[in-house]
Amino acid sequence: MSSYSKLKAHFQKIYHFKHLSAIAGWDQATMMPSGGNQARSQALAELSVHIHNMTTEPQLEEWFSSAESEPLSSLESASLREMKREWRQASVLPAKLVQAKAIAGSKCEHAWRTQRGENDWVGFEKNWQSVVALSQEEAQIRGQSQGLSAYDAMLDIYEPGINSAQLDTLFGDTKQWLPELINQIIEHQQARPTLRVSDKPFAIEQQKALGVDVMKLLQFDFERGRLDVSMHPFCGGTAEDLRLTTRYDQNDFTQSLMGIVHETGHARYEQSLPRDLLGLPVAEARSMGIHESQSLFFEMQLGRSADFIPHLSTLAKKHFTEHPSNLFDVDNLLNVYTQVEKGYIRVDADEATYPAHVILRYEIEKDLINGDIKHTDVPELWDLKMQQYLGLSTNGNFKNGCMQDIHWTDGAFGYFPSYTLGAMYAAQFMASMKQTVNVDSAVQSGDLSPVFGWLNDNIWSKGSTLTTDELVKQATGSALNAQFFQDHLKSRYL
Amino acid sequence: MSSYSKLKAHFQKIYHFKHLSAIAGWDQATMMPSGGNQARSQALAELSVHIHNMTTEPQLEEWFSSAESEPLSSLESASLREMKREWRQASVLPAKLVQAKAIAGSKCEHAWRTQRGENDWVGFEKNWQSVVALSQEEAQIRGQSQGLSAYDAMLDIYEPGINSAQLDTLFGDTKQWLPELINQIIEHQQARPTLRVSDKPFAIEQQKALGVDVMKLLQFDFERGRLDVSMHPFCGGTAEDLRLTTRYDQNDFTQSLMGIVHETGHARYEQSLPRDLLGLPVAEARSMGIHESQSLFFEMQLGRSADFIPHLSTLAKKHFTEHPSNLFDVDNLLNVYTQVEKGYIRVDADEATYPAHVILRYEIEKDLINGDIKHTDVPELWDLKMQQYLGLSTNGNFKNGCMQDIHWTDGAFGYFPSYTLGAMYAAQFMASMKQTVNVDSAVQSGDLSPVFGWLNDNIWSKGSTLTTDELVKQATGSALNAQFFQDHLKSRYL
Repeated sequence: MSSYSKLKAHFQKIYHFKHLSAIAGWDQATMMPSGGNQARSQALAELSVHIHNMTTEPQLEEWFSSAESEPLSSLESASLREMKREWRQASVLPAKLVQAKAIAGSKCEHAWRTQRGENDWVGFEKNWQSVVALSQEEAQIRGQSQGLSAYDAMLDIYEPGINSAQLDTLFGDTKQWLPELINQIIEHQQARPTLRVSDKPFAIEQQKALGVDVMKLLQFDFERGRLDVSMHPFCGGTAEDLRLTTRYDQNDFTQSLMGIVHETGHARYEQSLPRDLLGLPVAEARSMGIHESQSLFFEMQLGRSADFIPHLSTLAKKHFTEHPSNLFDVDNLLNVYTQVEKGYIRVDADEATYPAHVILRYEIEKDLINGDIKHTDVPELWDLKMQQYLGLSTNGNFKNGCMQDIHWTDGAFGYFPSYTLGAMYAAQFMASMKQTVNVDSAVQSGDLSPVFGWLNDNIWSKGSTLTTDELVKQATGSALNAQFFQDHLKSRYL
Repeated sequence: MSSYSKLKAHFQKIYHFKHLSAIAGWDQATMMPSGGNQARSQALAELSVHIHNMTTEPQLEEWFSSAESEPLSSLESASLREMKREWRQASVLPAKLVQAKAIAGSKCEHAWRTQRGENDWVGFEKNWQSVVALSQEEAQIRGQSQGLSAYDAMLDIYEPGINSAQLDTLFGDTKQWLPELINQIIEHQQARPTLRVSDKPFAIEQQKALGVDVMKLLQFDFERGRLDVSMHPFCGGTAEDLRLTTRYDQNDFTQSLMGIVHETGHARYEQSLPRDLLGLPVAEARSMGIHESQSLFFEMQLGRSADFIPHLSTLAKKHFTEHPSNLFDVDNLLNVYTQVEKGYIRVDADEATYPAHVILRYEIEKDLINGDIKHTDVPELWDLKMQQYLGLSTNGNFKNGCMQDIHWTDGAFGYFPSYTLGAMYAAQFMASMKQTVNVDSAVQSGDLSPVFGWLNDNIWSKGSTLTTDELVKQATGSALNAQFFQDHLKSRYL
């Protein structure tokens, strides 16, 4: 048996355990009664130790080095590269550091859940100090092993191939035009009426039926997936069995509905990964940014477009028969779904202001992880940048400032850029798709197969066989370029 | 660290993986869309290999032998005994035999799903031959390692401590009075009217609400469990998070409802196992027979009793407001739930005829596993015994005869006696409980706490700290005795 075959069998085994982790995690968020939580958390922790042990088994190093001199097809070479990547990411850190960061992160995150509401920066900072220090140590070790700067090594976890030099260009460019564009849009939209709320609640059952209909329109495969409810919506499960969740608000159906469109983008990517390779890292989604590009393609490029909203209008009128129908009129839904506003909170931001939130975080976390600023500098920098990019001050307002996100509480530095990379990829994919696909007429007709065909051929079916850069170049003819995103915003909002 | 402590930590780890297996298995039966089945089956198979490997790890043998000379409390000694039992059961068979039996069993069971409907004994017999031969080999190896006869070693898997000499006495005695008693009951019940079916279907939602109400009456803990739907009802999940299932028939609510009562008996046993020991084999349910004694206590001793049925009547009337209410009258439900009939099918049998089905299977499988008869003798013996015990012939009727059960198709020989042992234990527990608890008034009042208090003190909270024999003697003052069961049948049905 060749070393490559041994590696393949080994990673396929790991895949089975990840399957169980995904399903038990989904169950924990959707089905489990509260009394089961402790036992479930212990079981999942034990499983994650087992997966980590399998991914870092000592014999793998030897298999990797001998596999590299075996005759491999280009697909097998890509597969080997991705297995190695997974192994390296898992193996590079000393177990003691992993454990120390997990403990500090979990302590900080747990306390944050209370401290945020209390605007308690002082309390938070005491725990966060260790998380930052341990993340800096992690970043240095990762960087040294790959010849990368500390922060670039953290980026590589979520967005392999991207580095801060590229992001400085992309985001630096965006910073030049975004604040002014936001101001123009807001002026443009002034006094535009939007109607969201009705005296009569939107029944959960009807919202769910509407959501299912929209998922069908988006060709979600219900033979290999479900829609359920969880506190924090997510797209979980496995490529063979996608578990999508949402949360319904009886007073406003619009957010949950668009959330479903967003998660369906993630889900269709997963459902369409190369089936004959499933079980191997090379069959997995390319990166967090590419994943987000699919959810944002569904949400922003399709879902909030003037051609798609008539479908939402028709379906909403079908399901909500007892509400004033003007709530569901195309014009009203279009206004609701393209409203731009400056705000403090990233997760509530629209597609125009969202990049400002991300660029701010990118700039701060890069300097923090590279050791160029101290963690105590963060609130002041946050305030400064919020004023620059969105004209809002967060002076003394920690809970709506630097304490608003969960990511940093347990040390997930390097993740934030993926959101805006995703938005930019999505805009570039749409522009490229339009060169060969009649997107407008497909969306208008309600049969989106040509759109999904393009995504399938160019993105979904590729898994991780290509690097991110190769993927984007093959799909669009050029490397990632923020111009497409700018053009998209201008064309939609001005 | 003592060897006992090492063993304890090791078995607690195994427990976490069993938790995941239980939840993923429950999901497969209740939630999973069909397209997820292959990936799930592979993942569960991989997990079961992992659990088997952990249970048979070579170092355990050494830990067991040194733990035996360590100073242990009596609880720790019991814990050690149960760990050792689990290890021995898993370790005694050569891996090749385990695999061969799994393959032959799976092939035979799969083909049986079609062959049964086609009454195809000839086709079935070809596959079953290997299952029987491999089971005989398994039984011999197990027997040799424990100094037991082949069949007694199979019994020991499901019912530790019981042997065929005891069963010969218990069942031999029962055979003397049961057939005549059944005839008497049927004569006694002649021309008794029962009403089950309505023109109007019983909506699933109302049936579920009724089921939940009955589970609450039976003090099922919904903070640590759920009720869902599956093709074949079961009680799954873990002690901390019980997953009970049922199947609704829109034409007849009575079967699903009593099924829920039955499964709730299993569930409450699991929910009440000694919490401070959970994770160790000594905290698990004592045996299949004791488990069944709890479901049958709930179903037969409580659920179908004249004092309990008024509660079912009241709740059914509360939920089914649009049906003729005489369907739910106490007298009618009592007739429905205590109807005795001779039939071919074990799973459809009532509590009076059920033991006849079990004794027949016991006698045949004992001789088969001990090599005293050939597998080709089974149909004729089945026909003969059905005529003796129930006056029915299965000559040429394989599908309603020896091909009706799944158990033998994959070699689960030794399991059947548990059903009737359970019924007998349940009757003995009730007789004993009545000496100190005013059961009648508790059941009539609807607050069953005194009943559950007795079960908790004497059965549930004991887990596997005692042997089955000790458990029964401590709870009832004597070893298992079929007289209590006979008395129960006579008092209820004559």
